[in-house]
Amino acid sequence: MSHALPLPDLDRLCVHTITTRPWPIEVASERFAKAGVKGITVWRDALTGRDLARTGQLIRDQGLSIVSLCRGGFFPARTAGERTKALDDNRLAIAEAQALGAPLIVLVCGAVPGQPLAESRKQIRDGIAALLPECRAAGVKLAIEPLHPMYADSRSAINTLGQANDLCEALASDCVGVALDVYHVWWDPALEQEIARCGRQNALFAYHVSDWRTPTLDLLNDRGLMGEGCIPLRQLRAWVEATGYRGFNEVEIFSSRCWAQDQSDYLARIIQAYRDYV
Amino acid sequence: MSHALPLPDLDRLCVHTITTRPWPIEVASERFAKAGVKGITVWRDALTGRDLARTGQLIRDQGLSIVSLCRGGFFPARTAGERTKALDDNRLAIAEAQALGAPLIVLVCGAVPGQPLAESRKQIRDGIAALLPECRAAGVKLAIEPLHPMYADSRSAINTLGQANDLCEALASDCVGVALDVYHVWWDPALEQEIARCGRQNALFAYHVSDWRTPTLDLLNDRGLMGEGCIPLRQLRAWVEATGYRGFNEVEIFSSRCWAQDQSDYLARIIQAYRDYV
Repeated sequence: MSHALPLPDLDRLCVHTITTRPWPIEVASERFAKAGVKGITVWRDALTGRDLARTGQLIRDQGLSIVSLCRGGFFPARTAGERTKALDDNRLAIAEAQALGAPLIVLVCGAVPGQPLAESRKQIRDGIAALLPECRAAGVKLAIEPLHPMYADSRSAINTLGQANDLCEALASDCVGVALDVYHVWWDPALEQEIARCGRQNALFAYHVSDWRTPTLDLLNDRGLMGEGCIPLRQLRAWVEATGYRGFNEVEIFSSRCWAQDQSDYLARIIQAYRDYV
Repeated sequence: MSHALPLPDLDRLCVHTITTRPWPIEVASERFAKAGVKGITVWRDALTGRDLARTGQLIRDQGLSIVSLCRGGFFPARTAGERTKALDDNRLAIAEAQALGAPLIVLVCGAVPGQPLAESRKQIRDGIAALLPECRAAGVKLAIEPLHPMYADSRSAINTLGQANDLCEALASDCVGVALDVYHVWWDPALEQEIARCGRQNALFAYHVSDWRTPTLDLLNDRGLMGEGCIPLRQLRAWVEATGYRGFNEVEIFSSRCWAQDQSDYLARIIQAYRDYV
């Protein structure tokens, strides 16, 4: 097994606004930049009430790259009317990404409790296919994020990298790729081969890091800072970089525990954990 | 898609002692039998302080079949000494199953936080292989239970039915098969084909039912009663029975919520849910 080298510099460090959720985006982008972070992924809730173009400019003026907009998706629904509404929201996200200057939208694909997963998977494929013309026109790409199987009930029927790769292959568009998040996929016995396959498809668009804590006390908001858990981060980055990936390593952590801490201290710990464990 | 028929009778209904955890095993077996349940799977904690042969006889005298003993496994460990201790505990479980009169032991295979999953998987295979002579001598079989990927950190490095099937194939012993629990595998896009493969390998030894609640509030003890969640139970039983499986349908529910209720009322609801949803 080849292992990735440490990351002494921060050139490829991106932090998600949700990671430091208590900070308004203006504060986050200023603090991130001062700390040496080079990229930011913007969650849509952080944009409420803002002028998107001006916010994008403000972020870039700090020297930060806008890596992606989180999130689109949630395509499956019981009725055609609701699915149309979901598509409209995704079209809005594409317009927002374009205005902000984000080249990529991360998709949490969606699921409906009790609706057969096979049906949700079909609706997801159809939903993404319907957005391709708008993506191309706007110059915005889409990244399918396979979500951990513990979210298959209500958040995503796409639960392995293999499924996301299959979907990319079926859609066959250079606008559609994968956002690989270690938290969701680290357990998968097929992970190494599916990362290689994703690379061969030129579909590895984004790479998200955090850690899996033992015990995990909450299904949504108990992710760990890198190094606090059991995910073999160096091994996974080695597999990712073996595909030629040299994009950002994005720190995306949902954690009630961390959100309750002083966010400046927390950012310093994120940076140290990035150097030590990613 | 073919759908299984309803289950108007209880001939194949088994309940795990852990499902009605507040009841001592003597109470559970009496109440199960009176309610028309035909099988019981015994958790080892329910046997504390009991004479095993006498307890087995008491259960059989109620007219109940002892379906399996839960649980062995937890093979991976950091040191050879700890792995030997784990094997010893599994040998004890085999002796307990023989004394009780249980033909099968369910294996939760184990994992060590931070130890590479590939290493844990190898230790699991080696551990099961080491037990085969004792299994054969005792007339006790082993059922590998693939556990949901949310338990890959510390409970099992075997997280899909495909992996369990691979392991059975590698071990190539009629003493080793699979305990399929809907809670752990319902999300898997390869489930239908892997159930069929498990059947072709004559390895489908047990079938456990419960449901997945939305939202799920706890990773361990928030399982749903059948019908309370989103698992397509009739579809899954159809796939299972298409292999020729006609063993027990075992109700295994970890639920702090249900354990806090009157257990007699709860047992009545289990039976109704079995008829309506399994």
